[in-house]
Amino acid sequence: MNRFTITARSGRARAGILSTARGDIETPIFMPVGTLGTVKAVSPEELKTLGAQIILGNTYHLYLRPGCDIIRLFDGLHKFMHWDRPILTDSGGFQIFSLAKLFKITEEGTRFQSHLDGSSHLLTPEKSIEIQRCLDSDIVMCLDQCIPYPADRDAASRALERTTRWADRCRTWWQENDPGRSALFGIVQGGMYPDLRQMSAEALIDLDFPGYAVGGLSVGEPKELMLEMADHALPLLPDDKPRYVMGVGTPQDLVNLAAMGADMFDCVMPSRNARNGQLFTDGGALNIANARFKTDTGPVDPQCGCYTCRHYSRAYLSHLYRNRELLAYRLNTIHNLHYYLDLMKRMRAAIRQGRFDTFKKEFILDK
Amino acid sequence: MNRFTITARSGRARAGILSTARGDIETPIFMPVGTLGTVKAVSPEELKTLGAQIILGNTYHLYLRPGCDIIRLFDGLHKFMHWDRPILTDSGGFQIFSLAKLFKITEEGTRFQSHLDGSSHLLTPEKSIEIQRCLDSDIVMCLDQCIPYPADRDAASRALERTTRWADRCRTWWQENDPGRSALFGIVQGGMYPDLRQMSAEALIDLDFPGYAVGGLSVGEPKELMLEMADHALPLLPDDKPRYVMGVGTPQDLVNLAAMGADMFDCVMPSRNARNGQLFTDGGALNIANARFKTDTGPVDPQCGCYTCRHYSRAYLSHLYRNRELLAYRLNTIHNLHYYLDLMKRMRAAIRQGRFDTFKKEFILDK
Repeated sequence: MNRFTITARSGRARAGILSTARGDIETPIFMPVGTLGTVKAVSPEELKTLGAQIILGNTYHLYLRPGCDIIRLFDGLHKFMHWDRPILTDSGGFQIFSLAKLFKITEEGTRFQSHLDGSSHLLTPEKSIEIQRCLDSDIVMCLDQCIPYPADRDAASRALERTTRWADRCRTWWQENDPGRSALFGIVQGGMYPDLRQMSAEALIDLDFPGYAVGGLSVGEPKELMLEMADHALPLLPDDKPRYVMGVGTPQDLVNLAAMGADMFDCVMPSRNARNGQLFTDGGALNIANARFKTDTGPVDPQCGCYTCRHYSRAYLSHLYRNRELLAYRLNTIHNLHYYLDLMKRMRAAIRQGRFDTFKKEFILDK
Repeated sequence: MNRFTITARSGRARAGILSTARGDIETPIFMPVGTLGTVKAVSPEELKTLGAQIILGNTYHLYLRPGCDIIRLFDGLHKFMHWDRPILTDSGGFQIFSLAKLFKITEEGTRFQSHLDGSSHLLTPEKSIEIQRCLDSDIVMCLDQCIPYPADRDAASRALERTTRWADRCRTWWQENDPGRSALFGIVQGGMYPDLRQMSAEALIDLDFPGYAVGGLSVGEPKELMLEMADHALPLLPDDKPRYVMGVGTPQDLVNLAAMGADMFDCVMPSRNARNGQLFTDGGALNIANARFKTDTGPVDPQCGCYTCRHYSRAYLSHLYRNRELLAYRLNTIHNLHYYLDLMKRMRAAIRQGRFDTFKKEFILDK
């Protein structure tokens, strides 16, 4: 079970403390993505040095590889991967939707073929929570039904209603089987239809979850629509509960969403882009493969205090990246995760100081 | 300039201190290979934690990428790659021999085509030392002419004679251009012909180098012949100078060669095998991809004190490796470099305690 305390507000933005059995998390928070039991290219110690307070694990991936039988030998994901801070796990629903070869949704659950070997599996709401229980996740997500963009109103409506029924089943299984250490979050669906979003939020609030997520965003819709939907959905959620916008987004997105009162984020962008040579700075992203960096003796970002910027030049990073040296992926990932985690820290400070609106305006001006 | 002091002997094995401008090195020493300005998969800080006292850089690779123009912007390789301990660089001769698309050797030097883009380059003895000077190497190697195995006596003889003339030219360029911080080592050639090895050693000793290497080993000859040649060549070298056996070998090779009085080693084996999932232990190497490790909750080696063995299981390493996770290469490399560097430490202790012969016998029995 967790506890959420709001400690400061600035406009609609809020700073708070989300307490879990494995430690407190300062919000707004960004959760680095550790898909397969490792945040790609970095060690748990590096994540701690970067200030990561919680990471995300992907239920779909971990269920397929290494599988619960192996994770159970370690009493969960934490010991398996040498990470003792909180872990949030998703439900697997979005990954089936985006990765599985084939899937078929019925009231019982989703039958899918593994993207790895084509093997057939059935993920029910109960099974999703059971897997997350085996991972010993600190924040467990309800299985939801994701829909593509665009989706017609009827499809969006059916998916949200099923998501609500599944949330109820998740909650029942979790109440009967969870030893009381984790928190179960509901996920608001409803596609790009504001009234459906409202219907979804109200139904989930009736189930009284300790936290709520806005799902089904960043599925191909225009950026403005994503922000519009989040802007509409976030105020529908209880003010005193943590609000998590799933799978989003750019640094600018995080600032915009925090301004709307979002508390939690996850995204593969900082780590994936790092592996593609794109490095974030307040002045915009730079592509380290660009020829002009070959002779550039300065750091990626003179303002940045990360390990990479303190010790290595753009020329060296360019050299490593061009030669696909393994250290390139690590140093780039460290920089980008630092950028994201430090941005959250700056946002928390701005909220505490009651100047988030100014922070947001200046952040946009910097682009 | 460097200084070499022998501090203990056990049979023909010796322990000593090789002093360089960038610090002292305890011998016998293993030098991790940092081909392109990075020891693949590990950071300089990790290398220090592992006890690496000196690393090796490859002149051929660094000349082609990133090139001296870029390294010069950093006043050498150390600052470029964030490594402040000593670096030994090879001459490029062996890499041309083993990697270049085409090469043609004349008295002037070796003309070769880059294995990367087919561009044509001429590496003369002077040019090799000039490149190593630009890298600001602490231990500089003379350009030698490598020959394949098997090679007839005539070819071996011509190559060693040219190697001697090139050593003289290297020495002249180095004396005129080196600011006095580095040491230049000569390389004994002569193929698998004991009398040619002797001729080569004597000619190089006349040139009075501060250290000597045995080159041209591990070029495809049987293991016994490699050891026989080393056993023959090492005693030909001055007792009071460091002796370096280039590009060798397995843990067992290092023990055998140290027993013959070798002081310095380098080899890609620990790091390359790590990236192929092979992990060294005193009980033999294990292949982490083996199915039996999938559910093995123990460390790679219960005796081992490395970061990997302290925090991760065989099951986790197997999972990472099977999924080609970047962290796999790092954790495996840390373990193998620890194994090699710790083995050298155990060898130095055994020499100091005058029990190297026993150590060697027990090490073999453990296999």
